Amino acid sequence: MPKISLPRYDDIILAAERLQGFITHTPVLTNTEINEALGCEIFFKCENLQKSGAFKYRGASNALLALAEHERKAGVFTVSSGNHGAALGYAGARLGVSVTVAVPSNAPAIKRNNIEASGATIVTIEPGMEAREQFATQRAETGEQFIPPYDHPDIIAGQGTATLELLKQVDNLDAVITPLGGGGLLAGACLAAQDIKVFGAEPALANDGFESLQSGIRQPAKPPRSICDGLLTQLGALNFEILQRHLSGLFVVEDRDTKAALEVIWQRLKIIVEPSSAIALAALKQEQTKFAGKRVGIILSGGNIAAEPSQPLQV
Amino acid sequence: MPKISLPRYDDIILAAERLQGFITHTPVLTNTEINEALGCEIFFKCENLQKSGAFKYRGASNALLALAEHERKAGVFTVSSGNHGAALGYAGARLGVSVTVAVPSNAPAIKRNNIEASGATIVTIEPGMEAREQFATQRAETGEQFIPPYDHPDIIAGQGTATLELLKQVDNLDAVITPLGGGGLLAGACLAAQDIKVFGAEPALANDGFESLQSGIRQPAKPPRSICDGLLTQLGALNFEILQRHLSGLFVVEDRDTKAALEVIWQRLKIIVEPSSAIALAALKQEQTKFAGKRVGIILSGGNIAAEPSQPLQV
Repeated sequence: MPKISLPRYDDIILAAERLQGFITHTPVLTNTEINEALGCEIFFKCENLQKSGAFKYRGASNALLALAEHERKAGVFTVSSGNHGAALGYAGARLGVSVTVAVPSNAPAIKRNNIEASGATIVTIEPGMEAREQFATQRAETGEQFIPPYDHPDIIAGQGTATLELLKQVDNLDAVITPLGGGGLLAGACLAAQDIKVFGAEPALANDGFESLQSGIRQPAKPPRSICDGLLTQLGALNFEILQRHLSGLFVVEDRDTKAALEVIWQRLKIIVEPSSAIALAALKQEQTKFAGKRVGIILSGGNIAAEPSQPLQV
Repeated sequence: MPKISLPRYDDIILAAERLQGFITHTPVLTNTEINEALGCEIFFKCENLQKSGAFKYRGASNALLALAEHERKAGVFTVSSGNHGAALGYAGARLGVSVTVAVPSNAPAIKRNNIEASGATIVTIEPGMEAREQFATQRAETGEQFIPPYDHPDIIAGQGTATLELLKQVDNLDAVITPLGGGGLLAGACLAAQDIKVFGAEPALANDGFESLQSGIRQPAKPPRSICDGLLTQLGALNFEILQRHLSGLFVVEDRDTKAALEVIWQRLKIIVEPSSAIALAALKQEQTKFAGKRVGIILSGGNIAAEPSQPLQV
């Protein structure tokens, strides 16, 4: 594969222009009780309220909008167990681009349903990197473009617009924390934030990113075990390079702490986020002393999880 | 009781100025799939994301901010099974006003807990209007001000700021729909909306408002049975007068339709609302042909309901 050049700040500005009117300008929420409990000011960027239910719509849309007319006509495909597939499906439906998504057989039902609802064509494959790569290689022969979930300059630039928007909505942030899975969101945040510190949060059970940054060599994905089903993939190669250059720190978080953070967000902020979103708040709590008195942005990455009232509603 | 003059549009403007920086400027959400399904454009004003978890914080804060210094020092009390009590508690804590809330013994646990968390002092009373009135009469002897949940000019004006804000956030609305319980939110909407049509939504099992408007005589509350636990009170006297003059229509909604609307909001908008909020969307669906092609604002009144993932998170 030829060496792909890393995206830069300017690419995020360009992506933000392309996405104007296409994506939802998601709100930023704050909560006095959470701030008091953690001793800092937190600004939650609600990408769970983004179209398709996740920030992934930014990158997927940017990638499709960047295609030439003949490429759009040929259609695109991807491999995704969740939010990227749905995001690409919804963006494709809007632009009239045919989208095929290979979905691993162990994908959460709600995410598979969301991909189906987007209008994308689903192909079921075995779980794991091998089946993904095999599918991608075969499918590329059809002439369709492969739009990968995270390791692609247009995807990274698109995801970076979430942080760019946050910085326009909130003055004088000291830091931004995002979840880390494949690294598109976090790498995009690193590029968008410029002088502001950016931190990542990664599940302890899927800490290949942490080990990659420690060792300087990109590590394979771990067996998929964390409740953060969106963060189980291997850190992408481009993203790894960007994180090596720009990341201020990566926090490894236990699932039980992510679960507690999820409950706080649901109960206090009154919004539905998936565990992969809540990990960033769990990381902040874990590193509370580090962020004492600071103004911290948290990107809530997605909300694709089934929810119901704790008590049945009597009708 | 001396005749209290009805609040007017100017009172809402004044309330909005008072509340500047005190309340949350809540976001407005839209959803393409819901719009397509219902054949109109819906703008959801997210008062579930308001401080204290409900629009009630607007009226409670406005009422406390309107008090003279010596009145604030004397403290206030109210009777509330839910969101008004918590709202008054939180507003009181912020302004250093002592707040006592009489809570009926049948109040939902989450709402009672929310009142407790606000810092208010709780007194448990029997359910029903009689116990409420008895408590209010006795407590008034202490010199504390009674801040009623809805039938008060400052409360109505405060609640009206939700609609005022919505009209600034969204151009060219054709109509606004709000839930109807005691009538503070709906009466406030009527005053704020001026030339725009305002509709109410009321549970079929608690339709004293509908019967009052039909008969021209304010009817007593019905036995509390609907899943819309925030909408079980009697329509207030001031609110009744305002609705008689300004309301464009009132829709009576079955609980099963409210429950379905609740699920749509949770799943599609990714926000947690209580049944009393969802009734407005259920009413819109019921009256779909009436609103075809229109731009409709819906005030999502509150989000104080316990929620959990449908599938347990495996940690």
